[in-house]
Amino acid sequence: MSLSLAIKLHLASSSPSFSLLTLNNHQHANKLTTSETCSNTKVRPKPIYSTNPLIIPTCKVRPRVQYCGTMIKSSLIEPDGGALVDLVVPEGERGAKITLAESLPKVQLTRIDLEWVHVVGEGWASPLKGFMREDEYLQSLHFNSLRVKDGSVVNMSLPIVLAIDDETKERIGSSSHVGLLGPDGDCVAILRSIEIYKHNKEERIARTWGTTAPGLPYVEEVITPAGNWLIGGDLEVLKPIKYNDGLDNYRLSPKQLREEFDKRQADAVFAFQLRNPVHNGHALLMNDTRKRLLEMGYKNPILLLHPLGGFVKADDVPLDVRMEQHSKVLEDGVLDPETTIVAIFPSPMHYAGPTEVQWHAKARINAGANFYIVGRDPAGMGHPTEKRDLYDPDHGKKVLSMAPGLEKLNILPFRVAAYDTKVNKMAFFDPTRAKDFLFISGTKMRAFAKSGENPPEGFMCPSGWKVLVKYYESLLAEEPSQQPVLST
Amino acid sequence: MSLSLAIKLHLASSSPSFSLLTLNNHQHANKLTTSETCSNTKVRPKPIYSTNPLIIPTCKVRPRVQYCGTMIKSSLIEPDGGALVDLVVPEGERGAKITLAESLPKVQLTRIDLEWVHVVGEGWASPLKGFMREDEYLQSLHFNSLRVKDGSVVNMSLPIVLAIDDETKERIGSSSHVGLLGPDGDCVAILRSIEIYKHNKEERIARTWGTTAPGLPYVEEVITPAGNWLIGGDLEVLKPIKYNDGLDNYRLSPKQLREEFDKRQADAVFAFQLRNPVHNGHALLMNDTRKRLLEMGYKNPILLLHPLGGFVKADDVPLDVRMEQHSKVLEDGVLDPETTIVAIFPSPMHYAGPTEVQWHAKARINAGANFYIVGRDPAGMGHPTEKRDLYDPDHGKKVLSMAPGLEKLNILPFRVAAYDTKVNKMAFFDPTRAKDFLFISGTKMRAFAKSGENPPEGFMCPSGWKVLVKYYESLLAEEPSQQPVLST
Repeated sequence: MSLSLAIKLHLASSSPSFSLLTLNNHQHANKLTTSETCSNTKVRPKPIYSTNPLIIPTCKVRPRVQYCGTMIKSSLIEPDGGALVDLVVPEGERGAKITLAESLPKVQLTRIDLEWVHVVGEGWASPLKGFMREDEYLQSLHFNSLRVKDGSVVNMSLPIVLAIDDETKERIGSSSHVGLLGPDGDCVAILRSIEIYKHNKEERIARTWGTTAPGLPYVEEVITPAGNWLIGGDLEVLKPIKYNDGLDNYRLSPKQLREEFDKRQADAVFAFQLRNPVHNGHALLMNDTRKRLLEMGYKNPILLLHPLGGFVKADDVPLDVRMEQHSKVLEDGVLDPETTIVAIFPSPMHYAGPTEVQWHAKARINAGANFYIVGRDPAGMGHPTEKRDLYDPDHGKKVLSMAPGLEKLNILPFRVAAYDTKVNKMAFFDPTRAKDFLFISGTKMRAFAKSGENPPEGFMCPSGWKVLVKYYESLLAEEPSQQPVLST
Repeated sequence: MSLSLAIKLHLASSSPSFSLLTLNNHQHANKLTTSETCSNTKVRPKPIYSTNPLIIPTCKVRPRVQYCGTMIKSSLIEPDGGALVDLVVPEGERGAKITLAESLPKVQLTRIDLEWVHVVGEGWASPLKGFMREDEYLQSLHFNSLRVKDGSVVNMSLPIVLAIDDETKERIGSSSHVGLLGPDGDCVAILRSIEIYKHNKEERIARTWGTTAPGLPYVEEVITPAGNWLIGGDLEVLKPIKYNDGLDNYRLSPKQLREEFDKRQADAVFAFQLRNPVHNGHALLMNDTRKRLLEMGYKNPILLLHPLGGFVKADDVPLDVRMEQHSKVLEDGVLDPETTIVAIFPSPMHYAGPTEVQWHAKARINAGANFYIVGRDPAGMGHPTEKRDLYDPDHGKKVLSMAPGLEKLNILPFRVAAYDTKVNKMAFFDPTRAKDFLFISGTKMRAFAKSGENPPEGFMCPSGWKVLVKYYESLLAEEPSQQPVLST
């Protein structure tokens, strides 16, 4: 892919209609016309669905005496660092904090910076209490882990950092604290006891992705346009981050998820990270995992079906479409709503393979998951400039199984499922009769949906499939001149 | 620097006059004429000096009952993994092993591969027992550490790997073991229970150096020309690795160093890694460190002055010149021979800054050092394509102080010494009278020596300075047309 062909859309920081829907679509944008890019970015004012039996009422919506206020004693896995970090300022203190924030020098956040405020503020990165200072940044970059005060180690594979430019640094001067402005201009947080240090982009990129090739989606979107300084400090989030896209009720914090697992009396929680539609092979795997956990003696294993809700590259299926597809999978009974929680993981994607899969797993520990399902080439993508996978597809699960700070997590490698033509359904691959199996990749699945062709019966529940077809039809309807795109 | 200008010399693997002296001088070779490059590579049949009061007779030379055979109970720091690895086949088993080795498929080593055989075989990388298999490689690359069987972690920041090409892989076929051929064609080692896996050079370089910019000396010399596969396995070294350059007696193994420290009844060992001549600022620092250790209550701190002896870039001062210079520093009494051991650290240089300094420190733990002196920008160099340091000069000591597996090592940050014009000697920099101090960088020092100009009196002992002047004069005499080069 030639970078010079890439069309870049930069979100104006003052955008009044801020939304998480894929507003930035530079990646693979060279395959798209400008208008298609725009169509993909439009904010859907009315989400395709707005209620769903799986929406877990949160404390804020329907207070439940037994779950609010104090943390219930739980047999769930301990959060990293021993206690879940919660950086959202209590309502009673909010007014004073906002007044303070308004008096401070300001740092303007991008929408992806705001996603990180959300992530860190709710404790997904526990025990991290803000954007990284240099000592945390260096440990993350070099060791994929942080040493905590008691000498133990927690996993931390992605640098969670906030970049500022020279002018902002100048403006901050000798101030110890700064206010953080959301993309719509609201002051959303305070960063306290700040430390400003150099942002060596090349080193950050090389050590995080294992390549500096141009075309990495997060790099192009976030790092290349960012300033040459990083600002670390302790975060105070002035109020819960909301996106007002009809999906906020699915954005359960680690605390809310733990409460829900306790309420359901889960004795094992197994997490499934995804950024793609769920087909019956995934469902087979998740159902089989539950069966295996029951065989191991667990009485009530609960599945956390946990689609990623932050930044994704332009050719990934948008969050609202994925959420509708997931809801159909549960409505159709492919997954059992009684033993499944669907929630949105608010993190942006790095597409950093073995480095990122550790983050995906670590964050789920904080949400209470003690089992993590890992597939082939997790968080991977094609090499941006060479015709190969960016990462060895097996490295993700190997690195995950050896990662410092993840020893307490049970890693469940993905069993390979494929379409068994003898029984017309997805089944675990049997190498003794390999010729009976059809492998339908994500690329092929999207190609089917884009062309309107049906996949083999039994590949995905029909109502879920319809959601995808409708999405790709809507793209084509808006872009009649655009050829169907077979994306990676 | 334009790569296309680089002149590369590749050492024929069958070279009969194998030597560690800088035989490969591609780096900065564009600044040199071909003949200068060659002059710099010539093997000096008679080293400038061949005996020295500091040469510690090894067991092989003058057996000492009390130190040979069994390891003396020692209060020295424990080697990583609890026991020092020694992979050199005992003499009695050598014949049978050589016969076995000759029957195996062969892998041809480069001279730098052989340096690694030396390093690993003597236990500098303990508990590593050979070239890394993939699980060790991935841990090193991602976490700069290895988890050992008891669950503890040892530091291991550089991948110690052996690359092979497609043809060699083909030739090995399904064999479980291979013989390793030294650059002169001798079978030097066996690699057992091998594992062959992909050599993703781009990822290795990016994660090790934090850049993929062209012009990194080790990358150009070792990785770029290497094959696309890595072969790991357990090493058996058929006999001690010797270089026959008059300096082998300085190449003390970790075991020999530990024996010497015990013999001297050291209760603290402080290591000073260097690849440059010793000036009086270094000496001040080392003498001051000893004083501080005495003040801390140690009775007999011993200095390990430990110049790196493996691959260095072309514009570094060659090992034999440095060793002669170091010997003058001791003869002149700038350092005290009674409390100093000079030995050669056989590792090649990566110039990988914060990643490599961990290796430099970890290897010295295995040799018995419990204090490690770290300077500004350790193992650093200029960025190969940009006008800046490749690494933040402070990152080395920061990363070292936080590195997993190095908790037991005491890190002693370098105090800044400079030339104090008020007393005409090197002294610790006093910021209250900054204008009295002259900073003489390595670059400036080499420029003085090359131009024949004397540095200020008191910068370096005169006999040591003469060694450097003689070396640069010899370069100029052999290259009359060559302009003096101010190298980085």
